[in-house]
Amino acid sequence: MIPLPRLQELVLDGIKQLSFPNEPSALYDPLRYILSLGGKRMRPVLTLMGCNAFGADVNAALPAALGVEVFHNFTLMHDDIMDNAPLRRSKPTVHTKWNSNIAILSGDAMFVESCRLVMQSPNASVRPVMDVFTKTAIEVCEGQQLDMDFESMDEVSINQYIEMIRLKTAVLLGGALKIGAIIAGANDSDANHLYDFGVNLGVAFQLQDDILDVFGDADKFGKQVGGDILSNKKTFLLLTALNKASGTTKDSLLKWINVSDQPQEKVKSVTQIYNLLSVREQAEAKMNELYDVAISHLNSIPIPDANKKPLKDLAASLMVRQN
Amino acid sequence: MIPLPRLQELVLDGIKQLSFPNEPSALYDPLRYILSLGGKRMRPVLTLMGCNAFGADVNAALPAALGVEVFHNFTLMHDDIMDNAPLRRSKPTVHTKWNSNIAILSGDAMFVESCRLVMQSPNASVRPVMDVFTKTAIEVCEGQQLDMDFESMDEVSINQYIEMIRLKTAVLLGGALKIGAIIAGANDSDANHLYDFGVNLGVAFQLQDDILDVFGDADKFGKQVGGDILSNKKTFLLLTALNKASGTTKDSLLKWINVSDQPQEKVKSVTQIYNLLSVREQAEAKMNELYDVAISHLNSIPIPDANKKPLKDLAASLMVRQN
Repeated sequence: MIPLPRLQELVLDGIKQLSFPNEPSALYDPLRYILSLGGKRMRPVLTLMGCNAFGADVNAALPAALGVEVFHNFTLMHDDIMDNAPLRRSKPTVHTKWNSNIAILSGDAMFVESCRLVMQSPNASVRPVMDVFTKTAIEVCEGQQLDMDFESMDEVSINQYIEMIRLKTAVLLGGALKIGAIIAGANDSDANHLYDFGVNLGVAFQLQDDILDVFGDADKFGKQVGGDILSNKKTFLLLTALNKASGTTKDSLLKWINVSDQPQEKVKSVTQIYNLLSVREQAEAKMNELYDVAISHLNSIPIPDANKKPLKDLAASLMVRQN
Repeated sequence: MIPLPRLQELVLDGIKQLSFPNEPSALYDPLRYILSLGGKRMRPVLTLMGCNAFGADVNAALPAALGVEVFHNFTLMHDDIMDNAPLRRSKPTVHTKWNSNIAILSGDAMFVESCRLVMQSPNASVRPVMDVFTKTAIEVCEGQQLDMDFESMDEVSINQYIEMIRLKTAVLLGGALKIGAIIAGANDSDANHLYDFGVNLGVAFQLQDDILDVFGDADKFGKQVGGDILSNKKTFLLLTALNKASGTTKDSLLKWINVSDQPQEKVKSVTQIYNLLSVREQAEAKMNELYDVAISHLNSIPIPDANKKPLKDLAASLMVRQN
């Protein structure tokens, strides 16, 4: 098996070698800019890992892997407009540095470029690979729409929330892996098990993110703790707390949701309510359950354990991250 | 040859049978809405005509034709946000009826759906068809960016303007035809001649649009005459006038460009200057030149004259349109 650092290097080199026209600069500069902001490059690495797990030459999957990364960055560019986000990886977002129109159009161009890259997959796999890619892409749009819908909805169930993060975040991890598997020539059953491994891991990963946002170490987590509480984001924690709370605890939770002028007190008080109701434990139980399902899908694939090890190691490392 | 009305019927039936999920409604309702607003459906008809000209079954090209139409409507949805346009075909634009975020995301979803449709092309042609589709898509983005760039540029040359409308409008007509030709099994040379026919016709068509905006019959043209003059749009006419004018005529033209509070007088005076400088004649000469180039490309294709006739008839009808 090719070690993870070597796969990461392949991805970073590939991104460096992507070449886009210079003009019109307002179309292509934002594209180069957002791709230069870094990030873990987890998704393209997953595509290479998916390919490697089935013993095929990962170079065959490199264009598709880069396409997945360009697609991911396209969604970030458009999401940042919709979320009115000023910063991305501590740098100004594209619509802030340029303007919204440029971020819309440059994002559109990125999506086209991502298609072109994925289309460079080998002939035998190009159609099933594109099927996974476009299905995943439309689901990511659906997830983003649900996320926006939830902001103005009074009632969101835990299941609706899980479905939203599955679409918005997890299917792209599963899709990235499955694309690599298809390019390696994996059969449908094996490719689908790998997909389900990625999707379940992705949902677990997002639940961990929700937990870290409240209970993480601010220094290690790399962003302000309590951001979700301050914005009343309907995360697994808040929805669980709203379900479990009753009496004065519920009154107190509802009161704090409506407070916006005492940020520190709000984070502290809502966190206390979460502790009182053991919502962290409940979130961790769900996270572990999903993690176990993910691993069981990986275990169902009839390839040598050595081929699964990098994926298991990655999964384990994702689940204890502090940032 | 299949008569034009029959091809139009095939396209309209195909659009009617397109099926998208109901939920999330804020993602898919705008998509259904913009596709329901009508329009000439010229681009998908061109794809079927391109296929039919080479004697193949047009049903093989129908999914790609519909993909081209969905793509075109995606660009309209995003362009309307960027142009801050309140109306599209006399109905509220998507970002007006819903909001900008919904128009961004629903447009993204339309682009994915257009890829899925184009990917339904027959196996033998799917890769070259997607190559044309993605190349065209990125060029349309480039054209829209140039159009926005031109608004704030002091100097735009006639050649830059022609290149902008080639990218923004014409390549999609050429691309639509070429996709049909490829699906029919046309060779590269023939497919490229058909592409060049479409591109030259498209630029000529846009120049006619510029002319009609100033000199058209308001009732037949279906929109306010003089809109381009009022918005100081750098069309072929204005750029030619700025090139040709000198002395007091130039002073007068520059003065009127800066006037915004006397719309009727502005349209009247700038039109008089255009007449004085014979810019209409110059635009028509360019338009006719491009039209002739288009026809010469069509004539270069070694297929029976009967196969070319529908395309020649369509080209002729486009060039005398009053709306």
